[in-house]
Amino acid sequence: MAMSTLKDVSERAGVTVTTVSRVLNNRGYISEKTRAKVYQSMKELNYQPNELARSLTKKHSNMIGVIVPTIQHPFFSQLTFYLEQYCFKKNFKILLCNSQAQVEKEKEYIDMLKSNQVAGIIIASRTPDVEQYVEQDMPIVMIERQSGGYGINICCDNELGGELATRHLIACGCKKLLHISGEFSKGLPGDKRAVAFERVCQEVGVPYQIFTTTEQEFYTRSYAEIIREVFAQMPDVDGIFASNDTMAAQILQYCYDHGIDVPGQLQVVGFDDVELCHLTTPQLTTIRQPIERMAEAAVNSILGRRGKKAVAMRTILPVELKMRGSTRLKSE
Amino acid sequence: MAMSTLKDVSERAGVTVTTVSRVLNNRGYISEKTRAKVYQSMKELNYQPNELARSLTKKHSNMIGVIVPTIQHPFFSQLTFYLEQYCFKKNFKILLCNSQAQVEKEKEYIDMLKSNQVAGIIIASRTPDVEQYVEQDMPIVMIERQSGGYGINICCDNELGGELATRHLIACGCKKLLHISGEFSKGLPGDKRAVAFERVCQEVGVPYQIFTTTEQEFYTRSYAEIIREVFAQMPDVDGIFASNDTMAAQILQYCYDHGIDVPGQLQVVGFDDVELCHLTTPQLTTIRQPIERMAEAAVNSILGRRGKKAVAMRTILPVELKMRGSTRLKSE
Repeated sequence: MAMSTLKDVSERAGVTVTTVSRVLNNRGYISEKTRAKVYQSMKELNYQPNELARSLTKKHSNMIGVIVPTIQHPFFSQLTFYLEQYCFKKNFKILLCNSQAQVEKEKEYIDMLKSNQVAGIIIASRTPDVEQYVEQDMPIVMIERQSGGYGINICCDNELGGELATRHLIACGCKKLLHISGEFSKGLPGDKRAVAFERVCQEVGVPYQIFTTTEQEFYTRSYAEIIREVFAQMPDVDGIFASNDTMAAQILQYCYDHGIDVPGQLQVVGFDDVELCHLTTPQLTTIRQPIERMAEAAVNSILGRRGKKAVAMRTILPVELKMRGSTRLKSE
Repeated sequence: MAMSTLKDVSERAGVTVTTVSRVLNNRGYISEKTRAKVYQSMKELNYQPNELARSLTKKHSNMIGVIVPTIQHPFFSQLTFYLEQYCFKKNFKILLCNSQAQVEKEKEYIDMLKSNQVAGIIIASRTPDVEQYVEQDMPIVMIERQSGGYGINICCDNELGGELATRHLIACGCKKLLHISGEFSKGLPGDKRAVAFERVCQEVGVPYQIFTTTEQEFYTRSYAEIIREVFAQMPDVDGIFASNDTMAAQILQYCYDHGIDVPGQLQVVGFDDVELCHLTTPQLTTIRQPIERMAEAAVNSILGRRGKKAVAMRTILPVELKMRGSTRLKSE
């Protein structure tokens, strides 16, 4: 069967080609009745709009590039799920890129996304400065990355998260606190978790220590070595704030293997609130990131920029403490 | 700066436009020296090939559509990670679709993928018969779905997996076995896990029971209710084979909450071998699916079909038992 054209659809629906095009592009006022008639005709003719050809005339496609370090990381798989859901609602699609935290690979991806004329790029990976590689006319959203450049920044309230986690451990009676942070060298927004931890410990006068981890540890999600080191250096720690849930889960694992009772002897708070928090023993107290709202804000920012609307350059979304079995309040 | 063209590149490199085009499309013999010269010129001119325009002339794009129920499920996030890696190597990209296990949504996605002229579609979701909605000239690969139709099937050796898990529980001294399967109504390859479980139990003469779960439970990954029911009906079970790792992790959770010692009183084997297996307490014995090899086979099948090569219509890849702390051999 020959492919049907816009003209076939317009003739069958008894409207002009312009009207059919408006329905397809969701542009201008179209009555519900006309819209239904056009859709019915498209269905009857099995009309398939050629998105590639449409993209060429629009100068950009209805795809949004998403760059994450790895979709295997539960934070990024959840984020990508919601990004895709919000794109789908707006009739956009996601081109997925796993940069594996390699700057060169990320640049290759950006080239690829540019040559596919994506409508915008959402970067949730952590390699520095790569956004300067993108021209100014390409909307670009950075999630939990360092600010700077012209990109739109979206992150959670990392400082509040660090404060909530630390005050909670103190309310649970912890006397010697430890924070295992991400790496500091990149100036990521997540660094504020450690800053808030330190500030609260100093205010309250609780002894504390901070250990940093590497990009490699973040990417492979293998924290066994740093956890061993931490317990060797600070065997009497009674409260740990871990900068992500996977790390916190591995601390629980270490405690189980070494007969350390959680929350009896040691209390643990994670960060992110991914599904894993429900599957550890005990379940994990954590700081919940508003992942769904971050995804929504990212998609809206790109479409807003494309639509020449004013878009907030910096959005900080609130976090909250989710208390589960890995901590216990003093009064209980 | 005006965009550079193929002609600019060819003039700078001192070759014909045809040669530049061959380099770009990786077609025909080109000496390494010429290739290097062309790439150097493209770099100097900041040449961006217009993938959209190239796709139009090729009649299909260099994108592959991937439909999963949800990227939040650890099996699918791992599978998608490897699919994207193999696509990247071949200069293809992934358009990601989360069907949320809804047939209508899946059909909408397929329409979208067709109108974007993808080179092929990889369906790892579980809604039935949707592949019949795709025309014969579109390469389509189904991962762990029912066979039938003209699609290419790739799955792991589910029967072997069921057999290995069951024989292992018996070797660990279990006397009363339970399998919690997926749903049976869709004729999925995973059903063979239960078939093998039943066969081995009957052969060896071990009492057993099989409980099935629903698509909804699979999609939401919430098995609390069925697990409660299972223990109410079979309180003296001493060996459980769960049809996925998330379910197995929730069984461990239930045991912890109810003072059931694992592996002392009850032994548990999962299926998939996702990252979670290392993060539960105790760590989870499971059947390892060859997820990376399944992804490689899927991408190669689509590219092979596009290249008019003979492609296996049905590929079954081997699985293996990964023993961890949730089981213990009798002799130990």
